[in-house]
Amino acid sequence: MRRMALIVQKYGGSSVADAEKIRNVARRVAETAKGGHRLVVVVSAMGKTTDGLVALAHQITPAPDPREMDMLLATGEPVTIALLAMALHALGFKARSFTGPQINMVTDAAHTKARIRRIGGERGRAALDAGEIVVVAGFQGATEDGEITTLGRGGSDLTAVALAAALDADVCEIYTDVDGVYTADPNVVPDARKLERISYDEMLEMASLGAKVLQSRSVEFAKKYGVPVHVRSSFKADPGTLVTREDSGMEEVVVTSVTHDRNQAKVSIMRVPDRPGVAAQVFAAVADQNIVVDMIVQNISRDGFTDMSFTLPRGDRARAAAVLEEVARRVGAEGVQHNDRVAKISIVGVGMRSHSGVAARMFSTLSREGINIHMISTSEIAVSCVIDDKYGELAVRALHEAFELAGR
Amino acid sequence: MRRMALIVQKYGGSSVADAEKIRNVARRVAETAKGGHRLVVVVSAMGKTTDGLVALAHQITPAPDPREMDMLLATGEPVTIALLAMALHALGFKARSFTGPQINMVTDAAHTKARIRRIGGERGRAALDAGEIVVVAGFQGATEDGEITTLGRGGSDLTAVALAAALDADVCEIYTDVDGVYTADPNVVPDARKLERISYDEMLEMASLGAKVLQSRSVEFAKKYGVPVHVRSSFKADPGTLVTREDSGMEEVVVTSVTHDRNQAKVSIMRVPDRPGVAAQVFAAVADQNIVVDMIVQNISRDGFTDMSFTLPRGDRARAAAVLEEVARRVGAEGVQHNDRVAKISIVGVGMRSHSGVAARMFSTLSREGINIHMISTSEIAVSCVIDDKYGELAVRALHEAFELAGR
Repeated sequence: MRRMALIVQKYGGSSVADAEKIRNVARRVAETAKGGHRLVVVVSAMGKTTDGLVALAHQITPAPDPREMDMLLATGEPVTIALLAMALHALGFKARSFTGPQINMVTDAAHTKARIRRIGGERGRAALDAGEIVVVAGFQGATEDGEITTLGRGGSDLTAVALAAALDADVCEIYTDVDGVYTADPNVVPDARKLERISYDEMLEMASLGAKVLQSRSVEFAKKYGVPVHVRSSFKADPGTLVTREDSGMEEVVVTSVTHDRNQAKVSIMRVPDRPGVAAQVFAAVADQNIVVDMIVQNISRDGFTDMSFTLPRGDRARAAAVLEEVARRVGAEGVQHNDRVAKISIVGVGMRSHSGVAARMFSTLSREGINIHMISTSEIAVSCVIDDKYGELAVRALHEAFELAGR
Repeated sequence: MRRMALIVQKYGGSSVADAEKIRNVARRVAETAKGGHRLVVVVSAMGKTTDGLVALAHQITPAPDPREMDMLLATGEPVTIALLAMALHALGFKARSFTGPQINMVTDAAHTKARIRRIGGERGRAALDAGEIVVVAGFQGATEDGEITTLGRGGSDLTAVALAAALDADVCEIYTDVDGVYTADPNVVPDARKLERISYDEMLEMASLGAKVLQSRSVEFAKKYGVPVHVRSSFKADPGTLVTREDSGMEEVVVTSVTHDRNQAKVSIMRVPDRPGVAAQVFAAVADQNIVVDMIVQNISRDGFTDMSFTLPRGDRARAAAVLEEVARRVGAEGVQHNDRVAKISIVGVGMRSHSGVAARMFSTLSREGINIHMISTSEIAVSCVIDDKYGELAVRALHEAFELAGR
């Protein structure tokens, strides 16, 4: 007899956008339940509900209090859980909904971006033991004092992964509008291949490199607690991609995927005096503007001066440049250059660690296509190059072929 | 120096229907707060939100589970409290919102029509002591186990009165779209007078007699705990009507008001055998159809037979008549008569207890106008007559004049 598994499933806002779609999700959940599995289902607010609530708050005041903002935003998901529980009842299943506070999702008091402190799994476990499908509001929790909090962007994924960890689930299934993680963007590389498995670290590199399948926080949480995460399609029954611990099979593959981010700009400060504290001044000025910097490159200095470059979201480039002109004057640098027609191309793979020559093959591939490299940055399992935007897709296709990622 | 009062205010759904109206309520609350008073504000869901949620549930299933229905319905008010708190912040006031569970509104587990068990006033009191305006979600509570419940129709009024009792407030102000309680419907009797004060018992009679200012449950609660309730207009600053304990001044007035209900029908079962158990059979059959009966009149029997009459909402008449034809056959009655062109006219006043002749004056007034009385029923502080619908307004005007209710 097959073992009865405990499965956590998560469905996002577009999967539960109206009554008809909620009934569809209920049917999908019911299929898994019929397989004899115990089920916890995490859902987001319906469709664009959360955006609507944010807009309503801004009709009241331009700067809403974060505590009251959380009170407001946390009203979205309980609508979905109640309706999904009703839809499951209508299909003849026992089901019970829980808000974040009810499932004991205890967070710190950092309103609108709270971090999970602990999850008391008792109520969920009691409902599962009573044969009920447990339906949980994603994105929300409460402090020890009962203040309502939300987890910030991608919070429902985090709820699902955290519940899977707390309940020691066999797998956490994240249903999305893509059917898994690919070796490259299939819109750019037609023979890109869906990966059956990928390691947490590779997924983390890919998440931060612009593949928007899973938020980094959820992957970090899954890695920390060893939760297997299955990314799969809301619309197809096919298996998707399992995000899991590295295993020996993975080591054999050097490069897993090629990612690219076309929404980047490059800013350089030229001939910065190379003395302690200058880098801190530069990045403090940028952080003060709430601009998130991605790659940072600084080469060795020459004659006591160095050039500092970094990439940032294209929309922030003008603002960053203005701030940096001022900083450049203050620290005695020569000036600021910027370019918002760049793309960042990366190769990712845990196998890279033990294989020399991967970066070299990347550079020679780009060179063979006549693509000039502006900046290079490497991490333990990724190599990234900034190139001219117009060569972005050519670079991805060339690297996908060079590393033989197609149809293995 | 004036004593600092504690005031509970309640605003209904139409007063908070959009962002602009919520800002208006905030300004009204701010005016009271500027007077140096401590304030608890109870609000309903915005406009028709609750109706919309009910409709959504019925898109999922015709018979939603009551627990899940409460989970769904309880999402409406937290939107309003968050927005009102934000609006008060924008006016420079300290304010903090609380859901029903957060303010410790503990109820029994009768989902969709829960009854209040107790209110832990600690959190509200702590916020008031910190100089904050306390904003509370009406209509909702939670069981001791943390299950979310709602209080049924008129639940937000009940929340306000119950909080006023728990916090020992000086007054509970209910803001509505009328500016108080009148001696008769001003649309019918142009010189009807707004009552400055009215007793709980009179208000209860009026509430059940079709004056829809306050739900009976809230008045009962206010009476039980001696909470003074001030019914007043959301749109005008004028004082409204204070619902309070009887005082010596009230006793002097025999009749306080004339009410009428035009939405009634009359059904009679003719020549019912007068033996034990027959009345029970008749009303059990009606109750099985979820039809709420209002007046019931049965006179003494003659030759072992009696006639039973009662009034009920006009929309239920056809259904009730069908059921009763069947019951009449079963118990051996002669048949069923019905009439949905009737109105119920009542006079209400605590002074009636100690004054004979009040009913007689009512009957003679109607007689003088040539109005025939179909049914009569009396309570301790009210006399009601069922008459032809077409004489309803004439009867109200004649009684209003006969009891000298205008411009005293």
